[in-house]
Amino acid sequence: MADQHAQSGEDKRPTEIPVIRWEEPPEGPVLVLLDQTRLPAEEVELVCTDAPMLVEAIRSLAVRGAPLLGIAGAYGVALAAVRGFDVDDAADALAAARPTAVNLAVGVRRAQAAHRAELARSGDTDKAAEAALAAARKLHRDDAEASARMAERGMALLDELLPGGGHRVLTHCNTGSLVSGGEGTAFAVALAAHRVGRLRRLWVDETRPLLQGARLTAYEAARSGMAYTLLTDNAAGSLFAAGEVDAVLIGADRIAADGAVANKVGSYPLAVLARYHHVPFIVVAPVTTVDPDTPDGASIEVEQRAGFEVTEVTAPQVPVTGPGGGIPVAPLGTQAYNPAFDVTPPELVTAIVTEEGVVSPVTAEALAEVCARSREVTIG
Amino acid sequence: MADQHAQSGEDKRPTEIPVIRWEEPPEGPVLVLLDQTRLPAEEVELVCTDAPMLVEAIRSLAVRGAPLLGIAGAYGVALAAVRGFDVDDAADALAAARPTAVNLAVGVRRAQAAHRAELARSGDTDKAAEAALAAARKLHRDDAEASARMAERGMALLDELLPGGGHRVLTHCNTGSLVSGGEGTAFAVALAAHRVGRLRRLWVDETRPLLQGARLTAYEAARSGMAYTLLTDNAAGSLFAAGEVDAVLIGADRIAADGAVANKVGSYPLAVLARYHHVPFIVVAPVTTVDPDTPDGASIEVEQRAGFEVTEVTAPQVPVTGPGGGIPVAPLGTQAYNPAFDVTPPELVTAIVTEEGVVSPVTAEALAEVCARSREVTIG
Repeated sequence: MADQHAQSGEDKRPTEIPVIRWEEPPEGPVLVLLDQTRLPAEEVELVCTDAPMLVEAIRSLAVRGAPLLGIAGAYGVALAAVRGFDVDDAADALAAARPTAVNLAVGVRRAQAAHRAELARSGDTDKAAEAALAAARKLHRDDAEASARMAERGMALLDELLPGGGHRVLTHCNTGSLVSGGEGTAFAVALAAHRVGRLRRLWVDETRPLLQGARLTAYEAARSGMAYTLLTDNAAGSLFAAGEVDAVLIGADRIAADGAVANKVGSYPLAVLARYHHVPFIVVAPVTTVDPDTPDGASIEVEQRAGFEVTEVTAPQVPVTGPGGGIPVAPLGTQAYNPAFDVTPPELVTAIVTEEGVVSPVTAEALAEVCARSREVTIG
Repeated sequence: MADQHAQSGEDKRPTEIPVIRWEEPPEGPVLVLLDQTRLPAEEVELVCTDAPMLVEAIRSLAVRGAPLLGIAGAYGVALAAVRGFDVDDAADALAAARPTAVNLAVGVRRAQAAHRAELARSGDTDKAAEAALAAARKLHRDDAEASARMAERGMALLDELLPGGGHRVLTHCNTGSLVSGGEGTAFAVALAAHRVGRLRRLWVDETRPLLQGARLTAYEAARSGMAYTLLTDNAAGSLFAAGEVDAVLIGADRIAADGAVANKVGSYPLAVLARYHHVPFIVVAPVTTVDPDTPDGASIEVEQRAGFEVTEVTAPQVPVTGPGGGIPVAPLGTQAYNPAFDVTPPELVTAIVTEEGVVSPVTAEALAEVCARSREVTIG
């Protein structure tokens, strides 16, 4: 049905530019980033030769997404070490670039610890720099491996829930390689299905207010050659009603110990729609997302963001005119309700797919059991 | 809670400019319209001195909304007659200004018929012009009266369903005086509650893709001095989950004989959320909205609109840059699914409020009975 509504316009498929990579040209090592603030309009690379440049890239959201920030931060420490700058100063500046991004600080401190340990052991700054780089590379590799394992487990689950293939998957927000050292979480599962010819269509929610679906997931879907269709968040209900959605695949920002899932605002309405239409609602996230200190959904504090995100539209291509940095769409002075996340209770979640295993049905016990398989998280 | 998220910025409350009015200055009669394409940025009046100017205003969406278009069309015929232009030519041009707007043609033909009948009876062109104007004024008055009666019945229903008052009402799209000869449908009920101090808050869905909630309902709410808060369509789920919604009030584009309701895309997900959270879902619409020739929801053909509405953002304040006339947010060439409406089955509708009475529970028999009270529609 939606195939008929293809938009005219140039078929400009994005090329395969890595989101992050370490390079060692003759003039010295650099960290090369795909500048996400310019997507999907342009693919521009940002070459960081020192930590302050990376701090600026993190602040401006040129690099974003929890796991990717951790990896970038670790590489930033390595960059400072390899180029002979003060490593502890660089680490502090990097860790503070976005104060609420926990993964960033974790990645930075891991590379810094490796550097410090090697320096204490051998006293050799070159070896210490190598150790920091090795820690960053390991974080990068581990994240990519976790993605691959989530994709594999998610694919197996889809095949079990939906025998026959030809999946039509609905997703929300952005969960692919733009936020990960690998291919991401929910998006990685869709990509795996695509590669073996079992993805019939990826339905991409535009994901207001920041339009990560329209801007970034559509970009990643185009880049991978998937059949995908963009829709307003409002139109998901029509797809469910028409029987056009076989499964919902989303990521998670935090998962409580009881399996309640905090994710981008708009996820919970999809869970309710999925339940009403007997469609599986599948959450894909690494075990590090599970927070054993948060007992349940009610304990998750939801960040309220600036009303300007709602009363104005902001996109890389939009010239700044409003007081919030976007184009005003509502009357000036309009008050807005703008929660960053919503919380889906475990009873609406069909399965949580992690790199360590699939939790289904979602219970605190089953979740704790899967998390215990990882060295990263233990639920006491 | 949302009160804390008030946006800074000038509190520029819109003034009370009528949406449509007939005036008779010394230089000759005119039809004055509030130019809706400039809202909410500016309140600009558009003065039509002849039918071609009104045709242009209709085409450019300066005047819009089914009932209001009918009234404007009827006044346009009167304008042509009073100013001595060819009435039948003017009527044909007006009726064709937006071919799919049934109310427009109905209004035009009603004034034209009144003109023709008086001309046949008395042969007096002045009297015939007066008759056309009288028909337009009657349509305007009838619509305003229907609004008032819907508001009264809707208020009574709210009080019955939610004793104690202090209603927190969620609405979608735009259903106030900007689309009506009176105060509208769903919005008129909220306004009536506000006037007697029983509206605690109006939650306004922004209503992507065309943002009628952000642009127009927020404008109307500000204009009436209501406590209102704008949200992305994604955030409605969070409000339901937090127990912040006492009732959903929406309009309808078409109601099938079995009570299935076609309305702006995004209405159906609200109905599912409302049912899941045991919140009343109330549709407010005149009996003319009921289409006895459409037996059920499945028979309602849903218009698919241009993908540009999704892949680009268009607002009065947005400079045109994309091929669809807006600012591109998705990669060029992105395919979009963009249904104009969705359909809510009668079992999810708590009540349908019409000017002739309230249908609850919603059954084909009860709906036919209420419609039979009106001369306008009969269900056979």
